[in-house]
Amino acid sequence: MRLYIGLVHYPVYNKHYQRIASAVTTFDLHDISRLARTYDVRKFFVITPLDDQKELVERVRRHWTEGYGAKYNRNRKEAIELVSVAPSLAAAGHVITDLEGEAPIFIATDAAEQQSRSISYEKARHIIRNKWVVFLVFGTAWGLDQTVLDEADYILDPITGRTGYQHLSVRSAAAIILDRLVGREDIKL
Amino acid sequence: MRLYIGLVHYPVYNKHYQRIASAVTTFDLHDISRLARTYDVRKFFVITPLDDQKELVERVRRHWTEGYGAKYNRNRKEAIELVSVAPSLAAAGHVITDLEGEAPIFIATDAAEQQSRSISYEKARHIIRNKWVVFLVFGTAWGLDQTVLDEADYILDPITGRTGYQHLSVRSAAAIILDRLVGREDIKL
Repeated sequence: MRLYIGLVHYPVYNKHYQRIASAVTTFDLHDISRLARTYDVRKFFVITPLDDQKELVERVRRHWTEGYGAKYNRNRKEAIELVSVAPSLAAAGHVITDLEGEAPIFIATDAAEQQSRSISYEKARHIIRNKWVVFLVFGTAWGLDQTVLDEADYILDPITGRTGYQHLSVRSAAAIILDRLVGREDIKL
Repeated sequence: MRLYIGLVHYPVYNKHYQRIASAVTTFDLHDISRLARTYDVRKFFVITPLDDQKELVERVRRHWTEGYGAKYNRNRKEAIELVSVAPSLAAAGHVITDLEGEAPIFIATDAAEQQSRSISYEKARHIIRNKWVVFLVFGTAWGLDQTVLDEADYILDPITGRTGYQHLSVRSAAAIILDRLVGREDIKL
């Protein structure tokens, strides 16, 4: 597998569907890096153009990989090591292209059903398992800006639960989506 | 479905495998109540014997169900409404028994493979889908105390990812487990 994930803080929507830069949530860094480590993701890009937010991410990273945290909890170190900061999706894409020698297939995620370029879990799973380079991207706040969705090669089908409620945290959505796409080789359901 | 979930703050282990009462994390309340709402869980019990921690949960609940939060975000209200505080697992079990007219099947979760009373996702899914009353319980901190596992009817198989790393947050574990047990009716993988 050559899977990369990204968590976008700009451009995303606020609750009034205005384009904003959201603040980094440290719980996202911990929860999603541990998911990345569990599911063999190569890097977890935290995407923000804001200098103070980049510095926050770097500070968390240093604490858990070099500072006291690295000694206190080695498991957390192994997860947080996967975190990279990037100023934009394009910049993260360039890093992946440099590392892999080819441009990634860009799969965006959204809580809404899409009119075009939607992709099922089955098909996305097939692409990832067949060792294509894939960049799977999640939005914070009220979700990825339309300009990001427009740039994606595919947009993954939304998570439908049992009630029509479509308001999971991005941490929960990332957990469910990674498990659906690359988890449970040997789980019969 | 007659599914209930619980998040245990006592008795759980700390990193030195000592029995402790952990602090309530408000992110757990938000993330897991939204999961409960998505996957049609009847109630989400937050289990703690500590008065100040019970009061914290009640304050969060009031803010989002009656206070400013209820107006600010109705979706969050619909989720947080599912939260109930209970002083112990036994007390939560009594509430379920009163509501359903029968005692629940108690399924505990743990990050380790069990020697006895382990249950696969397939079998647990079957029990829940067949409308048995089920109480599915998660541990905070370093996991559920052995005395809790000893009382369980079943202990669910651990989540195995792709790397052997077994250190997901309880929020991520709850997301993956609920999706495996009651999610994706119509998803082909």
